[in-house]
Amino acid sequence: MKVDIHAHILPETWQDLKQKFGYGGFIQIKHIEKGKAHMIRDDGRFFRAIEQNCWDPEAIIEDMDRDNVRIKVLCTVPVLFNYWAKAEDTYEWCRFLNDHLAEVVEQYPLRFIGLGTLPMQNIDLAIKEMERCNALLGMPGVEIGSNINDKNLDDPEFYPFWEAAQDLNVSILIHPWEMMGEKSIPKYFLPWLVGMPAETSRSICSMIFGGIFDKFPKLKVMFTHGGGAFPFTLGRINHGFYARPDLCAVHIQNPPRSYIGKFYIDSITHDEEALRYLLDMFGSKKIAFGTDYPFPLGDLEHGKMIENMEDLPLAVKEDLFINTAFEFLGLKKSDYF
Amino acid sequence: MKVDIHAHILPETWQDLKQKFGYGGFIQIKHIEKGKAHMIRDDGRFFRAIEQNCWDPEAIIEDMDRDNVRIKVLCTVPVLFNYWAKAEDTYEWCRFLNDHLAEVVEQYPLRFIGLGTLPMQNIDLAIKEMERCNALLGMPGVEIGSNINDKNLDDPEFYPFWEAAQDLNVSILIHPWEMMGEKSIPKYFLPWLVGMPAETSRSICSMIFGGIFDKFPKLKVMFTHGGGAFPFTLGRINHGFYARPDLCAVHIQNPPRSYIGKFYIDSITHDEEALRYLLDMFGSKKIAFGTDYPFPLGDLEHGKMIENMEDLPLAVKEDLFINTAFEFLGLKKSDYF
Repeated sequence: MKVDIHAHILPETWQDLKQKFGYGGFIQIKHIEKGKAHMIRDDGRFFRAIEQNCWDPEAIIEDMDRDNVRIKVLCTVPVLFNYWAKAEDTYEWCRFLNDHLAEVVEQYPLRFIGLGTLPMQNIDLAIKEMERCNALLGMPGVEIGSNINDKNLDDPEFYPFWEAAQDLNVSILIHPWEMMGEKSIPKYFLPWLVGMPAETSRSICSMIFGGIFDKFPKLKVMFTHGGGAFPFTLGRINHGFYARPDLCAVHIQNPPRSYIGKFYIDSITHDEEALRYLLDMFGSKKIAFGTDYPFPLGDLEHGKMIENMEDLPLAVKEDLFINTAFEFLGLKKSDYF
Repeated sequence: MKVDIHAHILPETWQDLKQKFGYGGFIQIKHIEKGKAHMIRDDGRFFRAIEQNCWDPEAIIEDMDRDNVRIKVLCTVPVLFNYWAKAEDTYEWCRFLNDHLAEVVEQYPLRFIGLGTLPMQNIDLAIKEMERCNALLGMPGVEIGSNINDKNLDDPEFYPFWEAAQDLNVSILIHPWEMMGEKSIPKYFLPWLVGMPAETSRSICSMIFGGIFDKFPKLKVMFTHGGGAFPFTLGRINHGFYARPDLCAVHIQNPPRSYIGKFYIDSITHDEEALRYLLDMFGSKKIAFGTDYPFPLGDLEHGKMIENMEDLPLAVKEDLFINTAFEFLGLKKSDYF
């Protein structure tokens, strides 16, 4: 039985946000036929085709049962973060999404765990909603973007947020979105294939070099997609620290490599050798099985690759599939199994 | 004895280009004291401090002799590409740089090999100068940027260039510069630590998905810094091909993984495990030892890490240190050793 730390869900429908808030830029959902819908920008541009398993808990559970997934940790789809909008409006939107997600979890409390979404463009409101997610909605964590309106995660503006998350013991999943340089790579799905891994490295490096893990040592943070471009380029990043301390050793005394172990990553690599590389670097206690379900770039076979890696010790697989997720989320396995 | 496929040089001095061409945006060199100079943008902004070994062949050879490097393959410093300038002006600038580099090589023909630089913003002029580099200056290859004024390397505008390079049997070193999204990551040296690896993945993916390796199957291309973010994210990239063929399989029939073996990379990873990962993926016949000398982010120990990897077979080390470079450049080892 497996826990999927990284899966997405959205409500079956929602209000016309352009109409509601009086300005455009939002994503709407348009149901095309039974079980099929389009996510559409409110200027009419097509964003993405989705299916029943993007909004229907029962369809999701059907897939979970097929692939022996006991629990999915669900969060919203990053294009719905809406950090660019007016903070009050995003706050209202986040409350709507979080209430929806809490209802899904309430309906299937042993199958789903929810991570909330926050109006990160306003830290006071973000903290307020994080507190509500935690205290009222029973969510052990939240999902935030890898940058907030192009502000990096080391920005002092976010210190109170990290502090509150640490105090509340709220776990944070950091998901790439608004990828740096994505306008330069419009073709071939490259914002997802090149931009997202870069974006994840950007967020990890910003937090390391910005001293966030030193300032908030109890913070529990997970990065997605196997850490993106970061793990393989750590040699370069670490060397950079020694090569240009004037630029890199501004907030930290120890090299980037010493921060391995201070954050989590998910397992999504689509490559056995890459996963082995991650296991060597991070250890199985810091890697949790994830899928990016239900999107086609995700692992829609739910860990089949890992299951088939016969040389991986059972204990390692148990960490990946179960233990790390509970550890990261601060939840008790015995409450679910 | 080793061959370093990736090292940089610039002339000791050059004309004031702002004055010469009548507009600004160029880099100038200002000598501060004996053996020390600054590269300065012509609006006065400091770019980088350099030392004697950035312009003086004898200082370079001193370092080479210290570290048992027989040959350095030299190319210009990417900030001097000047693709943004008027094409005629860059053409003139490239001729100046290439003449300088050819002189250095002529002076030490058994210690240096030169890779030319080209006015890539005008393909006719780029081809003309590539022909001159090849036929008149005796250069086996050229260095170009990972994008040309934000045009990706799959742009049909570059087809005649690839065709000419293939016909002339000119080898092409692709170096990251004008990194996508670099304005979003101004701190902590991140344009170099996050932007450059992303940029290299951008260039590899653009060439793969754009079908360049199919259209020009004899093209000899090398990417720097161990392939940047590409190798570790190949699982994701390959999965993307199957997940979204509507976006990814536009110009190619076979998955990205099938293109491994169709291009070269250098060895610069600063990490033993990363290099082992590359050797597993690409094989030693496609990886050439490089340093990024003389810059501090480079391997200024000239391959000490590789030398100390005792489990690497001698044949693998010989490929990395010698054979792959000659193969890539189309040169005969016996002419140098």
